[in-house]
Amino acid sequence: MHFADKLYERIHKVDSRLVIGVDPEPKRLFGEKSLFQKANPGQSRQGLLDAFCEVVVSVAASTACAVKPQSAFFEAMGLWGLESLARCIKLARSQDIPVILDAKRGDIGNTAAAYASAYLDPSSEFYVDALTVNPYLGPDTLEPFVHAARKSGSGLFVLVKTSNPGSGAFQDTPLADGRTLFMKVAAAVRDLGQLSVGDCGYSDIGAVVGATYPEELAALRKALPSCIFLLPGYGAQGGTADDVKGAFNQGGYGAIVSSSRGIIFAYEKLGEVAGPDEIRAAMLDAATGARRDIQGAAGAGD
Amino acid sequence: MHFADKLYERIHKVDSRLVIGVDPEPKRLFGEKSLFQKANPGQSRQGLLDAFCEVVVSVAASTACAVKPQSAFFEAMGLWGLESLARCIKLARSQDIPVILDAKRGDIGNTAAAYASAYLDPSSEFYVDALTVNPYLGPDTLEPFVHAARKSGSGLFVLVKTSNPGSGAFQDTPLADGRTLFMKVAAAVRDLGQLSVGDCGYSDIGAVVGATYPEELAALRKALPSCIFLLPGYGAQGGTADDVKGAFNQGGYGAIVSSSRGIIFAYEKLGEVAGPDEIRAAMLDAATGARRDIQGAAGAGD
Repeated sequence: MHFADKLYERIHKVDSRLVIGVDPEPKRLFGEKSLFQKANPGQSRQGLLDAFCEVVVSVAASTACAVKPQSAFFEAMGLWGLESLARCIKLARSQDIPVILDAKRGDIGNTAAAYASAYLDPSSEFYVDALTVNPYLGPDTLEPFVHAARKSGSGLFVLVKTSNPGSGAFQDTPLADGRTLFMKVAAAVRDLGQLSVGDCGYSDIGAVVGATYPEELAALRKALPSCIFLLPGYGAQGGTADDVKGAFNQGGYGAIVSSSRGIIFAYEKLGEVAGPDEIRAAMLDAATGARRDIQGAAGAGD
Repeated sequence: MHFADKLYERIHKVDSRLVIGVDPEPKRLFGEKSLFQKANPGQSRQGLLDAFCEVVVSVAASTACAVKPQSAFFEAMGLWGLESLARCIKLARSQDIPVILDAKRGDIGNTAAAYASAYLDPSSEFYVDALTVNPYLGPDTLEPFVHAARKSGSGLFVLVKTSNPGSGAFQDTPLADGRTLFMKVAAAVRDLGQLSVGDCGYSDIGAVVGATYPEELAALRKALPSCIFLLPGYGAQGGTADDVKGAFNQGGYGAIVSSSRGIIFAYEKLGEVAGPDEIRAAMLDAATGARRDIQGAAGAGD
């Protein structure tokens, strides 16, 4: 089954286009000032990390069309962090929540194939439903990922226009042919995805487009009608429901919107009174609000 | 101490500008057809991987200025592969062999900082002397890496012009201002490295430039006089000593040349007669030849 179709089904099932980003920043999870640590006393760091992932996944089960673990934070904790990443992925997948691993991998030839087998081969410990990849090395280096994704029914999200303030430095560069670089990358993503279109009409080869750039988002929507956009930058990074409106095709499909810090650390505003139940309730409340907000932007009601 | 100075010292000590790439491709290391497995019977896969890394590191000890483990191959083996990566890094560093982790990471803001802490913070299990990073997201996303590198005296190699056949698709794009994209990226790398110049006159912020593109290499050498180039593509990918000549400044500094498959799998040509001693000898022979070849290209004799 195509990744695009699995995602489409999930969007219907939970009535949500929200992706919850799992970004366990060590300095917010651990240490004397961590409310999460205070609410879960006597736990090891790995115990805290696992408990955090469990809460986030349980919140995503009823509010999100996917979870998006950010590999960097798990890698930053070393081997036990990566153990917990594997557990977090399995936990979400066991509940039929699609997992998009945000790892932004990219390399050449047989090395790209090795990354693809690490994340898109069902026999891997880190097997996920979709992976983010970086296009700088060229479309030929994305082909091993596309090939692996086709084999396992997984998806890719290729970085096209990222959400950071300086993303324009290279991505918006005006080219001699009148386009910008990101539009040229977008054309390559469209070509790579042509053979991976599911029954829902969308391709398994999607694009990452920052919610913080509504104009570029609208231009990309027009250029890539069959491409699913993964939109980071909503929430803590400043993107609003209004900003993401242009990402949806008529009917409200074609985009999913990721929020991390605004949801998973929502309990921090509660202060020291937060216990495990309050922490979960604060995340659920924030996720429910974001879900509703995004459904409105997609014209899908609630 | 600056990474550039550590590398400079090491180049002198071993009279070598060769970097040995540690690319443990599973299909060549494991399975009935693997000569390495036949030569090391009764070993687990992890045992084989560790044994392979030990041989490569022991060969690098006398022939190479650095080793460059390719993260993708270790990630492809899951958690035990990453355990072995940590061991391989520690083993090389314990012998004062600089380790350049080829992981091509890149992400925004606090996520980039998390990657930097995973690989450039001395307290990390995966701490290395230098890391390869991808610039597509913009120079602002490289700053957390530069900051971490300055703090720990580590280095970075930013992808500028990669060695793959299709690297030109985006990197050679003609820009409206008359440059190519890779020259624009190169200018950003130069700016990012200005505050990280060591006593040797080179910056800790280097560039990845494919040995397979001698013309671009020459143009980049001129544009970035204080930048250390890491050259993949020599050997199995087709780059020759002649191709890499233009990478060296007068005096023979400014570049290091990576070879992986041509060295680490050199024993495969021996056929089934290869035992552990023959395997090591074949790698050593190939590394010695590559080292001499590259010293010649640098005008450094042997």
